[in-house]
Amino acid sequence: MDLSQLKSDLGGIRMEDNEKIVLQKSRDFYWYSPVLKRQLDHVTADLVVTPTSKDELLRVMAACWRHDIPVTPRGTGTGNYGQAMPLSGGVLLDLSALDKVLDIRPGQVTTEPGAILAKIDRQTREHSAQELRLHPSTYNTASLGGFIAGGSGGVGSIKWGGLRDFGNVIALEVATMEEEPRLLKLSGADLHKVCHAYGTNGIITEVTVPLAPAYRWVDVIIGFPTLRQAAEYANDLGEQDGLAIKELAVVAAPVPHDYFLRHKKYLARDRHAVIVMVADFALDAMLALTDRYKTADVLFNAGGMDAAELKGLPPAFELAWNHTTLRALRVDPAITYLQVLYPYPNQIELVEKIHDRFGDEVPAHLEFVRFDGKVTCFGLPLVRFTSEERLEEIMAIHEDMGAPIFNPHRYTLEEGGMKQTDEVQLAFKREADPKGLLNPGKMIAWENPDFDFTSEKTYLFPGLQKAG
Amino acid sequence: MDLSQLKSDLGGIRMEDNEKIVLQKSRDFYWYSPVLKRQLDHVTADLVVTPTSKDELLRVMAACWRHDIPVTPRGTGTGNYGQAMPLSGGVLLDLSALDKVLDIRPGQVTTEPGAILAKIDRQTREHSAQELRLHPSTYNTASLGGFIAGGSGGVGSIKWGGLRDFGNVIALEVATMEEEPRLLKLSGADLHKVCHAYGTNGIITEVTVPLAPAYRWVDVIIGFPTLRQAAEYANDLGEQDGLAIKELAVVAAPVPHDYFLRHKKYLARDRHAVIVMVADFALDAMLALTDRYKTADVLFNAGGMDAAELKGLPPAFELAWNHTTLRALRVDPAITYLQVLYPYPNQIELVEKIHDRFGDEVPAHLEFVRFDGKVTCFGLPLVRFTSEERLEEIMAIHEDMGAPIFNPHRYTLEEGGMKQTDEVQLAFKREADPKGLLNPGKMIAWENPDFDFTSEKTYLFPGLQKAG
Repeated sequence: MDLSQLKSDLGGIRMEDNEKIVLQKSRDFYWYSPVLKRQLDHVTADLVVTPTSKDELLRVMAACWRHDIPVTPRGTGTGNYGQAMPLSGGVLLDLSALDKVLDIRPGQVTTEPGAILAKIDRQTREHSAQELRLHPSTYNTASLGGFIAGGSGGVGSIKWGGLRDFGNVIALEVATMEEEPRLLKLSGADLHKVCHAYGTNGIITEVTVPLAPAYRWVDVIIGFPTLRQAAEYANDLGEQDGLAIKELAVVAAPVPHDYFLRHKKYLARDRHAVIVMVADFALDAMLALTDRYKTADVLFNAGGMDAAELKGLPPAFELAWNHTTLRALRVDPAITYLQVLYPYPNQIELVEKIHDRFGDEVPAHLEFVRFDGKVTCFGLPLVRFTSEERLEEIMAIHEDMGAPIFNPHRYTLEEGGMKQTDEVQLAFKREADPKGLLNPGKMIAWENPDFDFTSEKTYLFPGLQKAG
Repeated sequence: MDLSQLKSDLGGIRMEDNEKIVLQKSRDFYWYSPVLKRQLDHVTADLVVTPTSKDELLRVMAACWRHDIPVTPRGTGTGNYGQAMPLSGGVLLDLSALDKVLDIRPGQVTTEPGAILAKIDRQTREHSAQELRLHPSTYNTASLGGFIAGGSGGVGSIKWGGLRDFGNVIALEVATMEEEPRLLKLSGADLHKVCHAYGTNGIITEVTVPLAPAYRWVDVIIGFPTLRQAAEYANDLGEQDGLAIKELAVVAAPVPHDYFLRHKKYLARDRHAVIVMVADFALDAMLALTDRYKTADVLFNAGGMDAAELKGLPPAFELAWNHTTLRALRVDPAITYLQVLYPYPNQIELVEKIHDRFGDEVPAHLEFVRFDGKVTCFGLPLVRFTSEERLEEIMAIHEDMGAPIFNPHRYTLEEGGMKQTDEVQLAFKREADPKGLLNPGKMIAWENPDFDFTSEKTYLFPGLQKAG
């Protein structure tokens, strides 16, 4: 790699080659996975480049194209699969300075890719009492472009489904990796080309997503003596079409009590927790439904608490999604997690069976979502990690029992997701990144078209830079 | 009835005893049903009283209580089951002058019972770009109190479910029928006491309902060569959790072409129509989904039409729900209709089977809704009426085939709905209307506790005033 020539080509654009800073910016939350931690711990870029305008971004891409230097885009690095880690070094394209909110209209917002979700919401709320439909638990630090490129859903998915669903992304603009980079506008079915592609086939330069009404959300935690009761209640609550709910999770005992340190005094070690964000005007109705459940115990209700008591408590969404894992990891670094789908309509039976099978080795964490029009649950169970072999075994048992795994211990698109080539994304890579310089190693279909996904072998990217 | 004494007690309150006007105000759209037309054509109140304040309303109720005069409340009389028709005469309590919007907040509005839906929306849109979640096709004329007291859902139900669902009514205030009428505030599970009770057990004096974001809704009509294809497409569209859709109906050929006169030039006689209201920002995504259906033909898309062309066309929701029936009736007065539930998950097969069975005698009209958390369809098929016996037979065949009927040819709560006593509403009537003066004849459980709902006999209210 001819970095000196690149640097001279990029005169005037923000660059950073301090090793420690570059290493830090080359990482995401890959260390949630002991497997990725082992594989990727040494990965680092050669140079971080931080364009502050679309023109600068295009200059960076053209220069990297000329010098055949890999480019790995990054929002704020809050992903969990190493998706923004530069496996072959080169340029880490830091998009965090492209952070402007460009346009707010009824039902939609357009931003630059690096805009932080919470910052977008502050502006859309102020503008017209609107907010993003979906966000990960890293709401306060994640960027919208990164969420689109590497996320799948999160808070809000109980109402709106996931990012893959028609309508949850309205339009994208992406820059291609060519001699003269083009800016392409995508909408409708074309969005699929670059959504959740880790930036392997285009750099997102503008995002338009729909907005939901912004309400005052009230955090409520309800305890149940059995996981089954908690899951049944949550499923029922999720199916209440008239209730304005934004988050709905179940976390098995003793996880809430043991790891939600700032909420501990409200929780009981033997109670499975249902975590809810409900609009203030829907709280009464939700509690009326809760009354029907004899074993339900409202452990925490922010609606009846004063500001002084609430101060210092994290919001409910920071107990959910990957923040559940994060809070557990902070107390017990040996913990890791899985991603599981419990398909409708057997989700409750499946959750109970799997929980019974593994007990406290794999404490259940369910996120209720709308999926293909039905309410079901997606799991992010914690795993008390012992070995990679046992982790593989736990996943295999899930699959055998009928619960597909979206493996969070793999850095490629295919292995983390559907275990097959996404032909649309691959075709678009041929068009938008003919040299294969964008985020190398993440799309198996590009790197090794003959890879056998049925082999049960983990793909190892040959271009992954050597450790040390 | 001592009307002269009543009139003197009500001095200063608006009254009307002109026979023609009283007859007119005693009617709703009961004539959609040939059965109700025969049974109720002669029904009329003795006096229409129109309070203009809550104080006046309470004076009317106390006076009627003293003189044992029946009171039948009415919003604007846009119901279809004779629910606001005074079967035993007495006072027709016209609530249309209690029409103020009292309070608009994020996610909710509080109004007086007589406020017209479209008028409420004009104010909530102006105030904060919000609108009612649910409304009947009589949006421009129906009152919110009447909708709560006699409706079940409508436009918006594809997103929010029905009025019976937790969260779709937030709070009600009702006046009791006692010596000293009380004003009771109801919320949570208590709402069920008076929702869809036809005003038999309390007069709604204030309504608080949730609001949805107000968007620019685009009317689209898609044609299909078979009813099955239209229904499958509509079901798929309804299950798109990320699409902002407000209305989703299927109307079998040749109904759209033959009866939607002002849209006729866009329609084809052999095409089954899917009628959609979609938010402007979701149109692209909806059309991308539509592209997946090879036989789909976009017949009408208001998104691509100019104002001049759209002028004079009714909005899509006035082609749907009971306006479908109304438009057919205007062309062919012999038409009537049914109300059918096609239970999830067999709705499509059931629709096809029933349509094949009856053919053009019962042209299908499906309204897709969320029901207990799933997308399914509710039917308002047209019926080319020949005799009451055949109508009964058609309904019996539906039930035999697994599609429960909500009989729109009955004027009682029980026969139109679940065919059993609603014990909660009955208990509340004992408390709120001990003399049984409110809307007599509509609640069988009150009038005849021993009525056998399994007898398959129609209940005939003995107090129904004689014709002529």
